[in-house]
Amino acid sequence: MRPPDAQAAGMALDLALIRAAHDRIRSRIHRTPVLTSARLDEACGGRLFFKCENFQKAGAFKARGATNAVFALDDATAARGVATHSSGNHAAALARAARLRGITAHIVMPSNSAKAKVRAVEGYGGKLTFCEPTQAARESTCARVVAETGATMIHPFENEAVMAGQGTATIELFEDAPDLDFILCPVGGGGLLGGTAIAAKALRPGIRVIATEPAGAGDTARSFLAGKIIPLEHAETIADGLRTTIGAPNFALARAHVDDVVTVSEEAIVAAMRTIWETLKIVIEPSAAVPYAAILERKVEVTGKRVGLIFTGGNVDLDALPWLRQP
Amino acid sequence: MRPPDAQAAGMALDLALIRAAHDRIRSRIHRTPVLTSARLDEACGGRLFFKCENFQKAGAFKARGATNAVFALDDATAARGVATHSSGNHAAALARAARLRGITAHIVMPSNSAKAKVRAVEGYGGKLTFCEPTQAARESTCARVVAETGATMIHPFENEAVMAGQGTATIELFEDAPDLDFILCPVGGGGLLGGTAIAAKALRPGIRVIATEPAGAGDTARSFLAGKIIPLEHAETIADGLRTTIGAPNFALARAHVDDVVTVSEEAIVAAMRTIWETLKIVIEPSAAVPYAAILERKVEVTGKRVGLIFTGGNVDLDALPWLRQP
Repeated sequence: MRPPDAQAAGMALDLALIRAAHDRIRSRIHRTPVLTSARLDEACGGRLFFKCENFQKAGAFKARGATNAVFALDDATAARGVATHSSGNHAAALARAARLRGITAHIVMPSNSAKAKVRAVEGYGGKLTFCEPTQAARESTCARVVAETGATMIHPFENEAVMAGQGTATIELFEDAPDLDFILCPVGGGGLLGGTAIAAKALRPGIRVIATEPAGAGDTARSFLAGKIIPLEHAETIADGLRTTIGAPNFALARAHVDDVVTVSEEAIVAAMRTIWETLKIVIEPSAAVPYAAILERKVEVTGKRVGLIFTGGNVDLDALPWLRQP
Repeated sequence: MRPPDAQAAGMALDLALIRAAHDRIRSRIHRTPVLTSARLDEACGGRLFFKCENFQKAGAFKARGATNAVFALDDATAARGVATHSSGNHAAALARAARLRGITAHIVMPSNSAKAKVRAVEGYGGKLTFCEPTQAARESTCARVVAETGATMIHPFENEAVMAGQGTATIELFEDAPDLDFILCPVGGGGLLGGTAIAAKALRPGIRVIATEPAGAGDTARSFLAGKIIPLEHAETIADGLRTTIGAPNFALARAHVDDVVTVSEEAIVAAMRTIWETLKIVIEPSAAVPYAAILERKVEVTGKRVGLIFTGGNVDLDALPWLRQP
């Protein structure tokens, strides 16, 4: 039975929707590689399979969900454009998907957004509207843009088509790394987690799906324990993609399909990020390092296990690397 | 006709030797990917194919040459071990190859070598001897080790088996990216350049082979003009793998098979390295960025051309990134 929250949110996400999303977006995204490392396997005693969404179009898995949401629209609806508010990877991903379809993406960004993020949206031809850097201003500004333009709001995670798109990474991961015992996935708003959990449990019912979260933005772990969403009042983590309270439909899916939520320290996130850069020679962003941080801190016992981890993105400010910050 | 220097050095490097090297090492190294980027192609007007030896075993193409040299030895010779003096990637690569064969690698390193490089050699079980940080001390210490142990000296670039191994990267690059118009290769001692040029011209006679070099260590460019080796008196470049005068047999091969040598500024090397990290989301070392720096500085006209570039390695000190240094 579907849990009540998910019903309330009208979420009918299942493997068929995720497969349909994959067919829809396959030619419009990268098939990202799955990397392995004998050295990292030796260090933890398990076998690790890293799904490298840092190599994805626009630098993050968000391209999957945004592309699916944009290309799932009928022509008349699509012609009025799409809109979102985001200061992160979803904004660039939506702008890119809209350009691919030849429609307008209206992107509302806080006035204090990082310049690199603004440039990324502009680079994909997104139409920017700036607002005060508050959640209320973001929502009201976006609502106004939607009202004025008739654009379809594409929420970064409380959206079924977005979640279906994010779940496609797991389909590919399983093709390249069968027989996984665990899948470790970062959780912020829960878009990736929802898609991942549905896909993983449908394809391999015995797998354990573990959400990983910075302790400094540990709302999902707390909410899991409480059995209801306990919103983040204050997020303190370098994992900028995860400074979000989990969405209601996402939480409902997580309760139904996620086996555990573990939290990690900031020190472990930085150490994990640096180890991945040094060992795998790839650039991942702090949020992407959270699942490996959980292994470093032994929050998940992986000895003898086959473990899939999703590297969510690679968009980093190279002028502000966390291991170089003054204490 | 083989040029006189190459004859003098006894170099008979040809495609058959490089193919034999490939057969010998294939199962002992990574088949590294060739990456492309629509964004970087747009920026330069050509089509770029990046052979990612930063993902190679021990983090650099040096694994190819060292592995070939070690496994080409007959059993009796191999049993006495191998030796080299190096403060860089060749040392780790040789230690790794020796461990694979179950023999001892004697590595002479200057006492001021970077700790990470020392740890890498130790990690592969290399037997370290430290010496004063001068070229004379390196050579005399290594000669003593060879005399005492009977180990075979494996020079980092003035060695036919090493060069044959380095040339195998080009065989793979051509398989993944046929019909190249150019191949751009960094030059330090000239081991990679020698193998690359022989393989490239044999497989595709019309290709242009371009050596790329930091202006601050521009001995090969000057030597090319002068028609004889003009040794580096002083190298000033962040491309630490290229602070070496080209070897005599390497120079002879370069004169016979390399079409041009271009030099690049330090600013271009740093900009190239950063652009590659940001755009491709991979970690490359400064030496590896030199060919792309040549494109950034328009030292090679690539409009409409298909261009292969070799990313030589990914071993970087993440605490000392060049774009973060104080001026």
